[in-house]
Amino acid sequence: MHSSSVHSLPANEKERCAFLSSLPLFRGLSQDTLAYFSEHAREEVLPKGKILFLQGDPVNYFYVVMDGWIKLFRETLEGDEAVIDVLTTHHFFGEMAVFDGKRYSWSAQAVDLSRVVSWPAAILEEQALLHNRLAINILRSMADYREQRDREIEHLKVQTAPQRIGCFLLRLVSEHWDKNTVPTIHLPYDKSLLALRLGLKSETFSRALNVLKKETGITIRGAAVSIPNIDKLSHYCCGACSNEFPCQDLKQSNA
Amino acid sequence: MHSSSVHSLPANEKERCAFLSSLPLFRGLSQDTLAYFSEHAREEVLPKGKILFLQGDPVNYFYVVMDGWIKLFRETLEGDEAVIDVLTTHHFFGEMAVFDGKRYSWSAQAVDLSRVVSWPAAILEEQALLHNRLAINILRSMADYREQRDREIEHLKVQTAPQRIGCFLLRLVSEHWDKNTVPTIHLPYDKSLLALRLGLKSETFSRALNVLKKETGITIRGAAVSIPNIDKLSHYCCGACSNEFPCQDLKQSNA
Repeated sequence: MHSSSVHSLPANEKERCAFLSSLPLFRGLSQDTLAYFSEHAREEVLPKGKILFLQGDPVNYFYVVMDGWIKLFRETLEGDEAVIDVLTTHHFFGEMAVFDGKRYSWSAQAVDLSRVVSWPAAILEEQALLHNRLAINILRSMADYREQRDREIEHLKVQTAPQRIGCFLLRLVSEHWDKNTVPTIHLPYDKSLLALRLGLKSETFSRALNVLKKETGITIRGAAVSIPNIDKLSHYCCGACSNEFPCQDLKQSNA
Repeated sequence: MHSSSVHSLPANEKERCAFLSSLPLFRGLSQDTLAYFSEHAREEVLPKGKILFLQGDPVNYFYVVMDGWIKLFRETLEGDEAVIDVLTTHHFFGEMAVFDGKRYSWSAQAVDLSRVVSWPAAILEEQALLHNRLAINILRSMADYREQRDREIEHLKVQTAPQRIGCFLLRLVSEHWDKNTVPTIHLPYDKSLLALRLGLKSETFSRALNVLKKETGITIRGAAVSIPNIDKLSHYCCGACSNEFPCQDLKQSNA
């Protein structure tokens, strides 16, 4: 795992509110509303493997990741795990479930030592009914999420397994792209979790990774991936996507 | 295509408002707000194959399907089509894009002779800012959509191709299930579109359908599918899902 620094909720009230207002969900809220959310925030350190809640549990809290990695997953009746997403710093989860069936539609587990901040679910709906700005923020975050899910469905339907891995790497590059260097990126979590995240069985994942190395010249040492020829990699992967490299949709959601 | 009746927007103002208020998006709105949406509604008949908008077009309208089938899809750079969804009567589309990047993230096309009602995108954001009830309705519809997308991602990641087809059939049965009959269902659109909808190449689809027939005893004649042993089919498919038959999530979103 590679987190460059430990993030934590500021102790000072004013800094806390400033921090909260920097999160898309709380952007543009009044000082009073920020103070209300600040007051009800509860920070929690989660040991590796800690289950926060299980699929089907009533929605009691919504969360933001401060540090580490949180895995959202479902278990099939036969016991296989479907990893829906793996979230890191400043990603919210559970906030949409508040407006949904009132039960979490997946389980959440800390992949590694992690830190989250949570709020009681009830105050989100209560405050969204009082403050339109908050309702609109939640709408925007849901719309972003929808865009991301649609993209993932597109990829699961049309990309081959090696393209899917290459695409995951390119999206990591896209966020901090400097044309003048050979990008070296770090896999954010281990390969077995990455395989599950991409919907690949571990044999398929290994085979696909070998194909990708051969076709695009990337090399992997531990968690470090070197991409000597980014055009070759993007040419190999992006043909099976409606997006172009560097990924337009990442830009959009960061805007 | 099998639509039992043609649906159209009532001409009478009072009936129009009553109809609008029966749609989840407009539920619980004041008469004035309903009248406003009624006034700005524009009904349109689409010939088979008509493109409503293309991915990347600015979001000018949002829509509800009255009749027929609308395909949402993306085209990869190499020209393959990824079918994101196929929508029918009373499904909205484009309403989330209003809160998103202001550009449609897929293209929309009438699969068959269809009828849609549209509204200018700008009035949705304007009215959502004025009426919290509307903002909350949009939130609920997004949350439902998210749940449905997460389920699809789960299935694309863990189900085999025959299970994916069987699951599609079971979901059609789930909505109108009568334990005392042998369910016969009608495929809502043709097999080539169904294959794309399920993310399967046509050869894979044919092979998978044959496996499914052999393993579960279902028979197919034209668009009619008979399921002599529903337990066998659900046993075969639902092991690779976190849901049980009849599908819990369908019940939830209809509630």
